[in-house]
Amino acid sequence: MNASKSASCSSRHVTGSASMMSPLALRHAIRSGQHRGTTTGYSSGYLQGNLAIIPAQHAHDFLAFCLKNPKSCPLIGMSEPGSPYIPELGLDLDIRTDLAGYRVFRGSDDYQTVTDLYAVWRDDLVTFVLGCSFSFEAAITSAGVPVRHIEAKRNVPMYVTNIATTPAGVFHGPLVVSMRSFTPSDAIRAILYSDRYRLAHGAPVHLGDPSAIGIADIMTPDFGDAPIMAEGDIPVFWACGVTPQMAIRNARPDLAITHEPGLMLVTDMLAEAAEFSVHTQAA
Amino acid sequence: MNASKSASCSSRHVTGSASMMSPLALRHAIRSGQHRGTTTGYSSGYLQGNLAIIPAQHAHDFLAFCLKNPKSCPLIGMSEPGSPYIPELGLDLDIRTDLAGYRVFRGSDDYQTVTDLYAVWRDDLVTFVLGCSFSFEAAITSAGVPVRHIEAKRNVPMYVTNIATTPAGVFHGPLVVSMRSFTPSDAIRAILYSDRYRLAHGAPVHLGDPSAIGIADIMTPDFGDAPIMAEGDIPVFWACGVTPQMAIRNARPDLAITHEPGLMLVTDMLAEAAEFSVHTQAA
Repeated sequence: MNASKSASCSSRHVTGSASMMSPLALRHAIRSGQHRGTTTGYSSGYLQGNLAIIPAQHAHDFLAFCLKNPKSCPLIGMSEPGSPYIPELGLDLDIRTDLAGYRVFRGSDDYQTVTDLYAVWRDDLVTFVLGCSFSFEAAITSAGVPVRHIEAKRNVPMYVTNIATTPAGVFHGPLVVSMRSFTPSDAIRAILYSDRYRLAHGAPVHLGDPSAIGIADIMTPDFGDAPIMAEGDIPVFWACGVTPQMAIRNARPDLAITHEPGLMLVTDMLAEAAEFSVHTQAA
Repeated sequence: MNASKSASCSSRHVTGSASMMSPLALRHAIRSGQHRGTTTGYSSGYLQGNLAIIPAQHAHDFLAFCLKNPKSCPLIGMSEPGSPYIPELGLDLDIRTDLAGYRVFRGSDDYQTVTDLYAVWRDDLVTFVLGCSFSFEAAITSAGVPVRHIEAKRNVPMYVTNIATTPAGVFHGPLVVSMRSFTPSDAIRAILYSDRYRLAHGAPVHLGDPSAIGIADIMTPDFGDAPIMAEGDIPVFWACGVTPQMAIRNARPDLAITHEPGLMLVTDMLAEAAEFSVHTQAA
């Protein structure tokens, strides 16, 4: 995994008919090669997911890691070993073809980029799909609260914190957060709106002083683009999907597959769907 | 109204059997003179209210003021002109006797303190009962989030802001806020918990920099006690029941009656009851 390019999802939004496309139609367009770019802004109202595919020998540990760290790893679906299907996430959904780009890691930080998984698929692979921040960002912007990096067509800034996740087996690492800054009253609204989207990281984990969670310079994120902050803004920090990616990197399985940043799995689940996993912990 | 002593409600909590007393039993104990002090911590789980009694000629304007400023004036009940009863708020409830202390204003800032309203009652008086912050404070503390002024057995600090309420007829004035400070993660929880209590001022209106809402020195509140703030705390500001008291003071009706701070009307309504009024505005 190339840390400098790592990102759970980018946040550039599109408008018009793309937002109205059904998840199934979009997945078919991706599968046939008609759609190749970001899924941001597509199939508005439906949950999009981060992808993590690992060998079955590590599946129990990773599942435990997700359940112990529900805010950074909101589990929305899991396959049977070797199966490229997760029927509960979508009609005719094939994990091997329905994302526009994949990163394949073979026990190191380097990766190969592919557009389908036929050549790398193995009978012992287990797929995990984790919610991403698109859903709550859409809710915030729909309510009229401006999200600065979206308005500036940048990626969200992300930071490695000094907060440790709860380890599980071989999976461990720091909590990674994404940051959005708001006027104080908009920050309160963003907290309330995002809390409704538990499968999209839910309510934030921190606000205010970045150094309190180990961020030395808020203008220099570890991933994503530098933030844009208006006068009087207060920074608000959410648990981020890069957290499980770093935990997988630390575990170094012989094979691991993630999505290309911004090229998510678009599911048939409504973004406001009930939770799949427990959501009782802070990180 | 004596501004230096003005307070919508104090926040000293009691424990034990007092918290289990039914609202009806507590009102009867107050009526008979057996209970004379604060109602804070009594009849846990039931909504307590601020009292505002004004002549009928101003009732429409005050009702409009409450509806236009729902966060500072969450209306939970209103009487018919001349009636001391509000049946929807409680069984056998008599506004003239069921609070332990009243302040009677006659067109000036000075007031007379009385323990019942028989001598001052008039056939044109209309009673308004507004939710107070006790309910959300109880929810926050029940969740294990410390509220500093309660732990220190102080009154909550309150501040006049530079935010104007939406005026209605003769009623106008600044938004007054109460402040509670928390660690950042507890601030997020306090925002989420308080939002559930719309009749108790709901979610906060501001957090962070006090000067952004016209507070020059956070250590010198306009009402209540000086705050206690721990290292790394972030101040969070809620709309406060002193707001309508200041609006009444500005209107100077020939007669106005409020409760003694901390000596509230204890209703039969559950604190989590649905809203009576609209809650769409910021102040």
